[in-house]
Amino acid sequence: KAPIALITGPCQLESLDHARMMAERIAAACAPTGTQFIFKASYDKANRSSLSTARGLGMEEGLSILSKIRDEFGCPVLTDVHDARQCAPAAEACDVLQIPAFLCRQTDLLLAAGETGAAINVKKGQFLAPWDMANVAAKITSTGNTRVMLCERGTSFGYNTLVSDFRGLPIMAQTGFPVVFDATHSVQQPGGQGTTSGGQREFAPVLARAACAVGVSALFIETHEDPDSAPSDGPNMIPVDQMEALIAQLRAFDALAKGLAA
Amino acid sequence: KAPIALITGPCQLESLDHARMMAERIAAACAPTGTQFIFKASYDKANRSSLSTARGLGMEEGLSILSKIRDEFGCPVLTDVHDARQCAPAAEACDVLQIPAFLCRQTDLLLAAGETGAAINVKKGQFLAPWDMANVAAKITSTGNTRVMLCERGTSFGYNTLVSDFRGLPIMAQTGFPVVFDATHSVQQPGGQGTTSGGQREFAPVLARAACAVGVSALFIETHEDPDSAPSDGPNMIPVDQMEALIAQLRAFDALAKGLAA
Amino acid sequence: KAPIALITGPCQLESLDHARMMAERIAAACAPTGTQFIFKASYDKANRSSLSTARGLGMEEGLSILSKIRDEFGCPVLTDVHDARQCAPAAEACDVLQIPAFLCRQTDLLLAAGETGAAINVKKGQFLAPWDMANVAAKITSTGNTRVMLCERGTSFGYNTLVSDFRGLPIMAQTGFPVVFDATHSVQQPGGQGTTSGGQREFAPVLARAACAVGVSALFIETHEDPDSAPSDGPNMIPVDQMEALIAQLRAFDALAKGLAA
Amino acid sequence: KAPIALITGPCQLESLDHARMMAERIAAACAPTGTQFIFKASYDKANRSSLSTARGLGMEEGLSILSKIRDEFGCPVLTDVHDARQCAPAAEACDVLQIPAFLCRQTDLLLAAGETGAAINVKKGQFLAPWDMANVAAKITSTGNTRVMLCERGTSFGYNTLVSDFRGLPIMAQTGFPVVFDATHSVQQPGGQGTTSGGQREFAPVLARAACAVGVSALFIETHEDPDSAPSDGPNMIPVDQMEALIAQLRAFDALAKGLAA
Repeated sequence: KAPIALITGPCQLESLDHARMMAERIAAACAPTGTQFIFKASYDKANRSSLSTARGLGMEEGLSILSKIRDEFGCPVLTDVHDARQCAPAAEACDVLQIPAFLCRQTDLLLAAGETGAAINVKKGQFLAPWDMANVAAKITSTGNTRVMLCERGTSFGYNTLVSDFRGLPIMAQTGFPVVFDATHSVQQPGGQGTTSGGQREFAPVLARAACAVGVSALFIETHEDPDSAPSDGPNMIPVDQMEALIAQLRAFDALAKGLAA
Repeated sequence: KAPIALITGPCQLESLDHARMMAERIAAACAPTGTQFIFKASYDKANRSSLSTARGLGMEEGLSILSKIRDEFGCPVLTDVHDARQCAPAAEACDVLQIPAFLCRQTDLLLAAGETGAAINVKKGQFLAPWDMANVAAKITSTGNTRVMLCERGTSFGYNTLVSDFRGLPIMAQTGFPVVFDATHSVQQPGGQGTTSGGQREFAPVLARAACAVGVSALFIETHEDPDSAPSDGPNMIPVDQMEALIAQLRAFDALAKGLAA
Repeated sequence: KAPIALITGPCQLESLDHARMMAERIAAACAPTGTQFIFKASYDKANRSSLSTARGLGMEEGLSILSKIRDEFGCPVLTDVHDARQCAPAAEACDVLQIPAFLCRQTDLLLAAGETGAAINVKKGQFLAPWDMANVAAKITSTGNTRVMLCERGTSFGYNTLVSDFRGLPIMAQTGFPVVFDATHSVQQPGGQGTTSGGQREFAPVLARAACAVGVSALFIETHEDPDSAPSDGPNMIPVDQMEALIAQLRAFDALAKGLAA
Repeated sequence: KAPIALITGPCQLESLDHARMMAERIAAACAPTGTQFIFKASYDKANRSSLSTARGLGMEEGLSILSKIRDEFGCPVLTDVHDARQCAPAAEACDVLQIPAFLCRQTDLLLAAGETGAAINVKKGQFLAPWDMANVAAKITSTGNTRVMLCERGTSFGYNTLVSDFRGLPIMAQTGFPVVFDATHSVQQPGGQGTTSGGQREFAPVLARAACAVGVSALFIETHEDPDSAPSDGPNMIPVDQMEALIAQLRAFDALAKGLAA
């Protein structure tokens, strides 16, 4: 078993300079533990709570930045796709395509993503049971692409609240695909601030520790140098200056869970 | 206040002949009470539980059938769209475009639908609070199109189960838009049969009566001449030969709720 | 089928004079429609959110008041019991014993209540599925007492919120026992105000109409002449001066659902 | 910070010989890691799903067995109480009184338990938010007894299912009281087998690891030498021959979470 990898980066791309700065700080945070990271950022926030909030740089500029980050930092990069036609261009710039939770049942998107041959990280819909993700994975693997990751990001629990059901991690692992735990979206409070989503940043490390103890292949943790002024997901992102310590802690739980040398 | 309208038809288009037969039987079921109906059918089931189930006739053939039904029966027709580019052609064939629940936060789809000028029926996501639909409606009305309907179709309640929160109907009505209650999807059991969704058909009339008593502008009820052999949503559709009696019953509750002559 | 009965009264007993005044106003509100009512009030609020809130007059004084109300108004009276030993004395003063929702699985309480021979109204626990109430009823009927009513009062839905699942009414009715819908507790927000429960009074009539349309034997509606200054459950009680109009409306939906002359 | 303690034993008392055998095997399982355990067993299952299942030995015989176990094994013993009058006698035989989840809002029971001066382990109701446990604790501490433990045992999530919200552990810890995680009841499926509760024993160690990583003072784990033939809670108890390995694993996660030497 390999140590946990990290999918991390700012929620949305802000500029090439910002992406570089973030990649640099993330690389520095991962270096002491030799943690492998996949740089994540979105070029378009396609399903925001309301129209009045920022959507992002757009696909062309965004993919250009992501491929530069990949080249400059030698790290794999991930972005989320919202439409079947976005898959091919995104797969040229990125190593991993991510299917958003709301879209995890959209057959055409799953097929188009699978057909690129890129690795695919599918977020489990907030409305879906963990055992139902086997059907989702099967849509992707029908293309011949078996590089699938299944990602827990919280399940609807009443209104404006998510709950993390940790039974879901071993249930999804029964598919044989790597399981990812998304610690920062799992503490979102969807729509909880009227026209934007709220979040409980303080619980992200708590749930990430729990996920490592349960056993996962990777963690997804969004980060920002100044979450409170980030254009999206500020309430749940981890300040980047706390990442090194958090990673070290999570690696220790992961090593214990997997019987690795700490 | 007008009496309830009905959005009804088979879950998916099967053929022109089948659509004609269904429209005929629906028209006959509505005639005794003078109930206005909008014929509903899907040309593509774009987010089925698993890949092994039928998706439908496709957009071109489907829209052609729907526009023929509109012409032959003089009734408005509705179909659901899954992608921004589908909106303009769908709006030529149909009077009402429907936004599926999983897609109710996809900004581009909402904008493209709004821009057609067609009436838009948005299903409330199973993951969304009723008060969050105001933001969804605002995305559509930002195009200048105010012909929006908000449709309740059940909220996630544990796994593989939905619950209908009837407080949601008056809450959504506070937006000023007509509220629709989808009686047949509200009794779905998503993923409840492994690779397909289950359903509790027997409760659809129960919940429809409750919705009429609470007060709605329209009901959404899928129907089929033989639900158990329908290509999708069989477990929750109402047999078409029960529709006339059901409509009469619902019209009586609606008249009472609205103070209309029965 | 008989028209709906009403279980109604203030949440907690305040004094003999207050109970008399309430019974008088309730009798007046029920008279125009000939609605049969059971006067309800508690002598002890045994499970309040916090210790700082009023518990009530106590069993001795409370039962004395209730039996006086029964004698003076000729109406059946109901109170809730919290302990097996309270059942026998409560059954002397009252016609109906009520089992609180939190206590609906406490075997000794159910047996002791059953053994009194009084009618028993059992609230469905917020943590219980409607089909599980058959086991609850069987505990009572094991005593030979088959005068059981099953009462829906909301199911846990995330934190501090209840949802009313109207499928539960016909499911519970399959037991053959009369089903009651508790409209005022179903809109409680348990613990929603820190040290007391909140409520959404405005939705109680909405849900009561829905219950009548679905079909119930009785409604449970707490009422007060000045809910906002009531010692408990103020946020969800109906002002007594609105009861006559509400009852008339509910009787009309009930008559329609049961095919009775309105 | 002290290492986790363990509250453990069979769900219900079967006989003195059985209790001795279990205590011996538990002591042996705890010895290698020096884990402190509190022997837990119930003399009465007062709220079983249905009447047809075994309730237990009764208070007198049960308390006599528990006090013998305490004397013979030198370990603290815990039992659950269901009625205010049971508290004083139970507190003579036992070191810790446990308040069942369904009863966690019953003021008289909490006060009577508090007044014994015994330590009190209160299970959080399946219908309660973690922050609402502060009010529950305050009822107990109003007696002057501050030896309170707050225990998470799952929250209602749809029907017949519980979910463990690990945010609840740090939220309850904000009260300053030790927090316990009940790993075997958290995987119960209440009423999930018709007349008895089901369970998912395989997930109890998974959730226990997660709780240790989050950080708790104690774990509650029911165990039996042959769970499948135990008179209650068989589907979720851990076979006693697996306890030593499980404890060692949990102690390692606990040590890591608390910065203790492993």
